[in-house]
Amino acid sequence: MSKRVDEILSWYGSDNPGVLKNLRWLLESGRLGGTGKLVVLPVDQGFEHGPARSFAKNSPGYDPLYHYQLAIDAGCNAYAAPLGFLEAGARLFAGRIPTILKLNNSDSLFSSSNPKPAVTGSVEDALRLGCAAVGFTIYPGSSERNEMYMEFREIAEEAKSAGLAVVLWSYPRGEGLSKPGETAIDVCAYAAQIAAQLGAHVIKVKPPSDVIEQDAARKVYEAEGVEIGSRADRVRHVVQSAFDGRRIVIFSGGPAKGTEGVIEEVSGIAEGGGFGSIMGRNAFQRPKSEAIELLHTVMDLYQQQV
Amino acid sequence: MSKRVDEILSWYGSDNPGVLKNLRWLLESGRLGGTGKLVVLPVDQGFEHGPARSFAKNSPGYDPLYHYQLAIDAGCNAYAAPLGFLEAGARLFAGRIPTILKLNNSDSLFSSSNPKPAVTGSVEDALRLGCAAVGFTIYPGSSERNEMYMEFREIAEEAKSAGLAVVLWSYPRGEGLSKPGETAIDVCAYAAQIAAQLGAHVIKVKPPSDVIEQDAARKVYEAEGVEIGSRADRVRHVVQSAFDGRRIVIFSGGPAKGTEGVIEEVSGIAEGGGFGSIMGRNAFQRPKSEAIELLHTVMDLYQQQV
Amino acid sequence: MSKRVDEILSWYGSDNPGVLKNLRWLLESGRLGGTGKLVVLPVDQGFEHGPARSFAKNSPGYDPLYHYQLAIDAGCNAYAAPLGFLEAGARLFAGRIPTILKLNNSDSLFSSSNPKPAVTGSVEDALRLGCAAVGFTIYPGSSERNEMYMEFREIAEEAKSAGLAVVLWSYPRGEGLSKPGETAIDVCAYAAQIAAQLGAHVIKVKPPSDVIEQDAARKVYEAEGVEIGSRADRVRHVVQSAFDGRRIVIFSGGPAKGTEGVIEEVSGIAEGGGFGSIMGRNAFQRPKSEAIELLHTVMDLYQQQV
Amino acid sequence: MSKRVDEILSWYGSDNPGVLKNLRWLLESGRLGGTGKLVVLPVDQGFEHGPARSFAKNSPGYDPLYHYQLAIDAGCNAYAAPLGFLEAGARLFAGRIPTILKLNNSDSLFSSSNPKPAVTGSVEDALRLGCAAVGFTIYPGSSERNEMYMEFREIAEEAKSAGLAVVLWSYPRGEGLSKPGETAIDVCAYAAQIAAQLGAHVIKVKPPSDVIEQDAARKVYEAEGVEIGSRADRVRHVVQSAFDGRRIVIFSGGPAKGTEGVIEEVSGIAEGGGFGSIMGRNAFQRPKSEAIELLHTVMDLYQQQV
Amino acid sequence: MSKRVDEILSWYGSDNPGVLKNLRWLLESGRLGGTGKLVVLPVDQGFEHGPARSFAKNSPGYDPLYHYQLAIDAGCNAYAAPLGFLEAGARLFAGRIPTILKLNNSDSLFSSSNPKPAVTGSVEDALRLGCAAVGFTIYPGSSERNEMYMEFREIAEEAKSAGLAVVLWSYPRGEGLSKPGETAIDVCAYAAQIAAQLGAHVIKVKPPSDVIEQDAARKVYEAEGVEIGSRADRVRHVVQSAFDGRRIVIFSGGPAKGTEGVIEEVSGIAEGGGFGSIMGRNAFQRPKSEAIELLHTVMDLYQQQV
Repeated sequence: MSKRVDEILSWYGSDNPGVLKNLRWLLESGRLGGTGKLVVLPVDQGFEHGPARSFAKNSPGYDPLYHYQLAIDAGCNAYAAPLGFLEAGARLFAGRIPTILKLNNSDSLFSSSNPKPAVTGSVEDALRLGCAAVGFTIYPGSSERNEMYMEFREIAEEAKSAGLAVVLWSYPRGEGLSKPGETAIDVCAYAAQIAAQLGAHVIKVKPPSDVIEQDAARKVYEAEGVEIGSRADRVRHVVQSAFDGRRIVIFSGGPAKGTEGVIEEVSGIAEGGGFGSIMGRNAFQRPKSEAIELLHTVMDLYQQQV
Repeated sequence: MSKRVDEILSWYGSDNPGVLKNLRWLLESGRLGGTGKLVVLPVDQGFEHGPARSFAKNSPGYDPLYHYQLAIDAGCNAYAAPLGFLEAGARLFAGRIPTILKLNNSDSLFSSSNPKPAVTGSVEDALRLGCAAVGFTIYPGSSERNEMYMEFREIAEEAKSAGLAVVLWSYPRGEGLSKPGETAIDVCAYAAQIAAQLGAHVIKVKPPSDVIEQDAARKVYEAEGVEIGSRADRVRHVVQSAFDGRRIVIFSGGPAKGTEGVIEEVSGIAEGGGFGSIMGRNAFQRPKSEAIELLHTVMDLYQQQV
Repeated sequence: MSKRVDEILSWYGSDNPGVLKNLRWLLESGRLGGTGKLVVLPVDQGFEHGPARSFAKNSPGYDPLYHYQLAIDAGCNAYAAPLGFLEAGARLFAGRIPTILKLNNSDSLFSSSNPKPAVTGSVEDALRLGCAAVGFTIYPGSSERNEMYMEFREIAEEAKSAGLAVVLWSYPRGEGLSKPGETAIDVCAYAAQIAAQLGAHVIKVKPPSDVIEQDAARKVYEAEGVEIGSRADRVRHVVQSAFDGRRIVIFSGGPAKGTEGVIEEVSGIAEGGGFGSIMGRNAFQRPKSEAIELLHTVMDLYQQQV
Repeated sequence: MSKRVDEILSWYGSDNPGVLKNLRWLLESGRLGGTGKLVVLPVDQGFEHGPARSFAKNSPGYDPLYHYQLAIDAGCNAYAAPLGFLEAGARLFAGRIPTILKLNNSDSLFSSSNPKPAVTGSVEDALRLGCAAVGFTIYPGSSERNEMYMEFREIAEEAKSAGLAVVLWSYPRGEGLSKPGETAIDVCAYAAQIAAQLGAHVIKVKPPSDVIEQDAARKVYEAEGVEIGSRADRVRHVVQSAFDGRRIVIFSGGPAKGTEGVIEEVSGIAEGGGFGSIMGRNAFQRPKSEAIELLHTVMDLYQQQV
Repeated sequence: MSKRVDEILSWYGSDNPGVLKNLRWLLESGRLGGTGKLVVLPVDQGFEHGPARSFAKNSPGYDPLYHYQLAIDAGCNAYAAPLGFLEAGARLFAGRIPTILKLNNSDSLFSSSNPKPAVTGSVEDALRLGCAAVGFTIYPGSSERNEMYMEFREIAEEAKSAGLAVVLWSYPRGEGLSKPGETAIDVCAYAAQIAAQLGAHVIKVKPPSDVIEQDAARKVYEAEGVEIGSRADRVRHVVQSAFDGRRIVIFSGGPAKGTEGVIEEVSGIAEGGGFGSIMGRNAFQRPKSEAIELLHTVMDLYQQQV
């Protein structure tokens, strides 16, 4: 067990030892185990975008067992998915890799300018499936945000008292924001802060752009000279915004892209002190050997920062 | 007890033995018992479309006992109906055929562009009536979809812990979709994926057309050359979309039609690897002997694929 | 104890003996006791239409005790009313006539195109007041219909497990329907079917007119030659639509009318196999002796069909 | 509906109308209906004394349906039995005679100097079986008496709020009493008082002898000249001890005896103002026709006092 | 589906269709399916007597899967065992044979003159394991009997409402009885009566000897000339004592004995109208092929009485 992991766990002093056990499980698993860095494989796109858009490119991915095995073979810290995907493999892979049950999900057959996912799983499900954590998505910027925050509050309270870690996907979206504003640096930093204030143990945000969405924020960024020029700067600011780095913040990989694009993005995240990546489509939409190769490259980038 | 049924049950590793018992009951009953294929008689049209539209054509069908007996005499795997129909015969037919209590239903005296059925029964009802499973309907594409998903989540959790199987009717419908889009191949496949991710054991969808509804999907279908030309191709894709065939997917018979139409449709479903048919109006709106003959023909088409 | 009552009770095989006891109490009470026919006195018009519109014409009717006594003196099978009316006389008349506690009610000080009554009593109330049954109203055709169905589901489940019978007023109304459509034959038959599918023991509908509301229904009525020409034909069709006569269906008396009008209407209901009448205003708005005379005439019309 | 029954019901002013309804059902049923007198058939001896001792003498009595039919054919006010006997006939005889579910029972395969029965049924059972009342036995004089009183308190509270009448078998027994003391007049009167104070609606005691068990009581009986010379005197005193006759007190028939013995005993009870008899072995251990004849004789004795 | 099974189910009119379904499952399974007769394999001896005493003689029996397979291969109606044994095979054998979860058990490392088993499973366990029934043991004659009756009451109420059948092992034992009295005819008959009155659906007793334990009973047996001379006579009397044959009564096989001894005993049970045998040690302590042969012989003896 590593000193770095002990240090990270020391930030969660209000959580019970059960939560710490599961955070340690996440942090000590896989190729990055013990470094304090994480690479997580999430596969909720079948629900979010539909099966063909998610899996046709690499069709073994229709099979839920494929992703469990990919996450294990690549040495990921954890595998995250909705109820059905986890149920399909939880017995076979029980205890072989930490899992994160995504408790709310949206599909794309109806779209709303103020989206709100459906709650599709429970803390009880996570316990019976042997998960390390539950995952939840909020959309700050949606008129429905407060409903999501309140659903999260109940779930997080229940999960924590049962010793489960809580991962929060904080994705600004909705009528309160412009489209570029969804990844604006002020908005991403704000999303990380909200997640941390809501009590998340692990926070997932999108990599921030150099846009500033809100005028009130812009004034301060300019007046105080907050550095947001490079990706690393911006990541550093987002991590700072999550309790000055005392919460685990990881970054999504976003849409599928070329290997170089991935490497460039992750390099910035790693350099800026991001705790890791949660990388779905860029992993499972490649042939398995390529996916593993890419994930190893990503892990190596984080390893270099340790 | 058949090897094929054992194989199917092996996919449900996160479910308790009570659920497996009831899935086995469904799979080992009737003329197709043991083949891994199912033909189910559903009679919810009295509620959904009204009594005359449902039963005037073959008036013995006004009597709830008629359908129990038809399902038994035809050798169906199961009989599915709302609370009232099941209550009317549950004592007389107790244990003679697996039953599925449909827990939500819509009538046609009010129509909404964003439909949502009423919950009209409970898991406790299913237990006291000796059912093998509960059934539930979701309408992906409706603005109310998430309410349905969340109702389902609660009901499915309760049913599974009581050892009941869970059948999910996944019928895209609502403002998010065009009328032809309701049976578009991308939408049907997506509906199957949603149902699987929500944790259904058995998924019922409509036979897909060769329409593609969503532009984002069309790009992928074309780029990846997903085969959707024949009915069998499309069924194969829908089954693939339900966890690469690791969930039981059955297809509704749709509006009453001629015998040839039924045979042609079912042939495609059977050839494409569909697990079976759930056939209401095409069964109970024919005179009983014709209905049995047709159901036997349908069963034979599935039998040939075993 | 009559064979006919035993036959009727045999239809309720999923109900416990407590429910059967209360159904028997209803069916064996009053002048029609043992015939399988019922005449029920309902007095909810004070709540629904206001006191003067209900009681000024025959002012003893302001007194809740009047109605208990009227129902007893006329030999009705049961007396149905909201909480307050039953509470006012329940001690004095305890056990002297079966009572039905109407659990939801609407007033006319606010009107909505999509009405939904308030729940104004409970199963516990019905037990403490010694009722034989609870009554509930649904408005198929209202945008609020599903809320009513779901309220009913919970109440019916609770009532049945406590051994109480369940009477469902199924009154189509709301934006989904035209005004004449509220009593259209297809709509009344559909309303009876919905009530039966929801699990009601006794179903109350309005006498159907020869209007057909829904085009989809009209096609079937014409194609199948469903007889709806006479009142008796239509009543027969409604009774058929309630599980082929395996549920007790009674018909409301509607607005106050002349004696001849009542007799003509009830004659048709009786001839068509209706199980009885639930007659409020035509009873309590007449002087007591006339009311009793009319109720006796009505009972005699049913008696002739036994 | 009789004035005497109305008078009796007026004594139960703290009970809800549901309880009154069920008391009325008891008091208005059978040949003595409306007289304010009761003859009840209890058959718990199979449990209490064993099957052969109970039923060998008249072997149709092994069949639970026999007793339902005997109680009906003889015109008893009610039939009382433990769970199994009532469950066996409750559907067939639903609503045909008031039933009393005996909620606690003792067998004779173990005997204790301080007996306490087992609770073998529930208020929920009584509701689902359509009973008019629950029955319960206490043994004043046993070291376990307070446990029984407290069990009764909970059951009675629950039963009353659900509208069920409560019948209390108050049978002094245990180390606190000599064997003759179990039926001593002071003890029987005291037992009736305890039952009334515990809130029973109907109290069942044994016919009292002229023994006085307790010295403290003897002093008062002698000083005040309480009349206890004849059976009628003693019954009058017991009834007086149950709230001066404002509670229904009925007397057990005790061991099987000759017809003359029964008549003599009942004559005294009737003359002393007892409300009736609860007569098991003297009924069901005779051939059915003799049993009916005897029960009619007993009823006639009460009828003469009306 | 057999007429005899329908007849048997008609005795359980107070039970819901779920219970009837599970009773039918028991009665329609195995080689005796449909005859109304049952042979059940119970394996609780590992808990009750210890592993070596139970399994050393035929060591494959240490393996819980062995017993599932033995019950299936021999064509038993059901397999009964404590929690651990059922859990060990419930997934593998889900739905392949009805199972009965024994909910209380005693070990032999402590012995009491007034034994009482520990409750070691729950109704929820039975549901999640897919059982047809729960089993429970009472020891009439023990000072602790009432505790057992009351535990059973709660469990039976819960099981019945969830649609599970209830099997009651009624084994007289304890300070209230002599050792020979445990199987005395009067005591066995009484034990069957108690079980029936407690509401059991299926009653298991030991084969009665011709001893009479209780003097009060002896008088009746002699006075009424109750036939108890042959084993068939005694079995007939026990069955009569369980509601005149309206409850399913099966007989335990008792200690291991030679094949002839088993055949002789079962012949008497079958001839006397017993509903079947529950045979543990005489089955699983023989080599498998011999066990199956013996069980088939036993089944044939019952078959001859159909």
